[in-house]
Amino acid sequence: MNIKANDPSLKSWVMVSAESDFPIQNLPFGVFKTDYLTAGAGVAIGEYILDLTYLHENGFLDGLGLPSGVFNQQYLNSFIGLGKKITRKVRNRISELLNRENEELRDNKPARELALIPIKEAVMLMPVNIPNYTDFYSNEHHATHVGEMFRDKENALMPNWKHLPVGYHGRASSIVPSGANIHRPKGQLKPQGADKPLFGTSKRLDFELEMAFITCKENGMGNPVSTVEADEYIFGFVLFNDWSARDIQFWEYVPLGPFLAKSFASSISPWVVTADALEPFRTKGPEQIPEVLPYLQYAGDKNYDIDLEVYLQPEGEEENLICSTNFKYMYWNANQQLAHQTVNGCNLKVGDMYASGTISGAEPGSYGSMLELSWKGTKPLKLKNGEERKFLEDGDAVIMKGCCKKNGVRLGFGELRNRILPGK
Amino acid sequence: MNIKANDPSLKSWVMVSAESDFPIQNLPFGVFKTDYLTAGAGVAIGEYILDLTYLHENGFLDGLGLPSGVFNQQYLNSFIGLGKKITRKVRNRISELLNRENEELRDNKPARELALIPIKEAVMLMPVNIPNYTDFYSNEHHATHVGEMFRDKENALMPNWKHLPVGYHGRASSIVPSGANIHRPKGQLKPQGADKPLFGTSKRLDFELEMAFITCKENGMGNPVSTVEADEYIFGFVLFNDWSARDIQFWEYVPLGPFLAKSFASSISPWVVTADALEPFRTKGPEQIPEVLPYLQYAGDKNYDIDLEVYLQPEGEEENLICSTNFKYMYWNANQQLAHQTVNGCNLKVGDMYASGTISGAEPGSYGSMLELSWKGTKPLKLKNGEERKFLEDGDAVIMKGCCKKNGVRLGFGELRNRILPGK
Repeated sequence: MNIKANDPSLKSWVMVSAESDFPIQNLPFGVFKTDYLTAGAGVAIGEYILDLTYLHENGFLDGLGLPSGVFNQQYLNSFIGLGKKITRKVRNRISELLNRENEELRDNKPARELALIPIKEAVMLMPVNIPNYTDFYSNEHHATHVGEMFRDKENALMPNWKHLPVGYHGRASSIVPSGANIHRPKGQLKPQGADKPLFGTSKRLDFELEMAFITCKENGMGNPVSTVEADEYIFGFVLFNDWSARDIQFWEYVPLGPFLAKSFASSISPWVVTADALEPFRTKGPEQIPEVLPYLQYAGDKNYDIDLEVYLQPEGEEENLICSTNFKYMYWNANQQLAHQTVNGCNLKVGDMYASGTISGAEPGSYGSMLELSWKGTKPLKLKNGEERKFLEDGDAVIMKGCCKKNGVRLGFGELRNRILPGK
Repeated sequence: MNIKANDPSLKSWVMVSAESDFPIQNLPFGVFKTDYLTAGAGVAIGEYILDLTYLHENGFLDGLGLPSGVFNQQYLNSFIGLGKKITRKVRNRISELLNRENEELRDNKPARELALIPIKEAVMLMPVNIPNYTDFYSNEHHATHVGEMFRDKENALMPNWKHLPVGYHGRASSIVPSGANIHRPKGQLKPQGADKPLFGTSKRLDFELEMAFITCKENGMGNPVSTVEADEYIFGFVLFNDWSARDIQFWEYVPLGPFLAKSFASSISPWVVTADALEPFRTKGPEQIPEVLPYLQYAGDKNYDIDLEVYLQPEGEEENLICSTNFKYMYWNANQQLAHQTVNGCNLKVGDMYASGTISGAEPGSYGSMLELSWKGTKPLKLKNGEERKFLEDGDAVIMKGCCKKNGVRLGFGELRNRILPGK
């Protein structure tokens, strides 16, 4: 295991401010390019990216079992597919190289200057090629809120909800990174009272605050992954925005689930924070009553204490904090989601993405979607500039942030920021 | 256009029997391997596979704009991604090479013997790597039957059904080729009257007879594909078995759609019959009332007249024909499906698979699933060996076949055959 993750005395010779998401305890992996470097893998440290291609080609990662060219690629899939034994060794070696006591890079100015690239000079790309994407629906507050709005308070949760982590297959092709603009989607809408659908631009565009994990191992068809084994399959986590067009969804989703209401875009934060880095921030999940079936039972703390925030920023205006919540509010954890996903023999691929479902808390300011925050448009949000919002408007940027704090260590996910452009 | 596709006088110097699915008018593409050849692309002709790697490396496909190594790959994606202008030239050149009047291969015994590989010596693999898979629900008979069984006859179709081709995202990783065995899936089942779900092996395992098309062009996010443009995106078709565990589905699918009831496996026939080869078998679709929205309107014949059959073969016993139907019974055609899939700006990838939905006719013998054939288990099918079937049993093989006949030309899809093994 990564023995260093929880050590606040661990410091790097790279200057890292106290508010940075990327101290030496984090070391998330991503894919970047610059004006002079083609796409390749890097690790974030403070305001810098450590160029893994450079380190590897220059002998700093020798002896770790890495194939040549594994970092000089458009995606992390080849690297994370080496398995957690090797990727953990690489992360530990990077921690060693960045340790303030270690002179290998610190005192080698030419190497240091080539290996460290200012984040502001880089463009972050999709970290993985995503063969499969599942979106779960694993937060009880969110599922209850939606149930209350569209059914009734007494039957807010469907009968299956507490027995299995409800989920559905999502569209992998339209998952884009932070920074990408999102065009308001067009489609069929059926306004209340209309006798037939119209074609038009979605009027009820929404975000959903989620987190997603990425798998790094294949099970092979017919081989379920247990909640214990799941840890070896989960490489790390990103912030996930499950953009949703509520009016398209309302008309299309019965009986086979959400389709075009979601597939126009989803977006993720570009740095994959490893499960190893998050280990110290494990916390207990909610008690599950009724007791779940044996294949969904688990031992230990499988939730994570991650503070999450959503900001809405009208174009050219201030950011408005509209949601503060926590990842620990999930009813079903990642290990249970993976056990459920595979219990029928379904095979996992390296790079698959599994999103949590919208993360809401019990209190109004902790709801993870405009649908809940404005309660279906009935309670508009007031913004600092005097405007109101029921749903998102053209020009609005949605910004998601996440960070963990414990015993003097603070690490985060960087920012997930996308702006809405008019339908084209 | 492929001017030769409809010409019954077109003959090959390769002997092709009258019942073969693979006359010179077909020339479907697939990926095969043998004991001595690694995976690569081939074209079926009679009882043989024409090895495209060999042809390309030996100059028979010169001047067609093919990059080196394009056929010597595990999947057809690179090849079909060249676009239909080039892939059509390749198919036309193969037609020329196989023409009985053409001496290039016919009279070059060493080349001919290396280029033609008996199908029985080869293993057929997945033809494409599938980045995204959508399953539509576009057959009115099937949707009506399901609606009648689970709702009521008067409201059998949901209000949206005639306005849009209902569909959902499916699991790409578990799509396997003909020949793969299918393990009966396990999962949560809630027997009627039970107050909580049980974990167990599906008792209501079913097939769904579908066809699927494969895309060969990217549109890029935010660029809808019209019903006219769709033809340039559709490379070809395969038979598709959308295996379904009805008892798992019944408990899990509200509100977000089918998930584990489908993701244990889907299967496809390994030869991709090109849209060019199917062009002569175009036929008129059903009149669509009410009129569909402009983005779903289309001109010309966009359905296909393809006879489809399903056989059930208990292990070691005779095959039983249990369904005879036709692809022309689809309410929504492939062009409409692709226009709908992309109308919100969703991006297509090369190799994506779009399945039609279960293909049923109006008459009982033409239903494309056990659910319909046995009417939810209330009318068991009688088999030749005296047994009955409500749903599929361990050891049963399901075999799907498809062929088109017109003006003396007959071409088909080969066989899609998979056997059920017990849950493991």
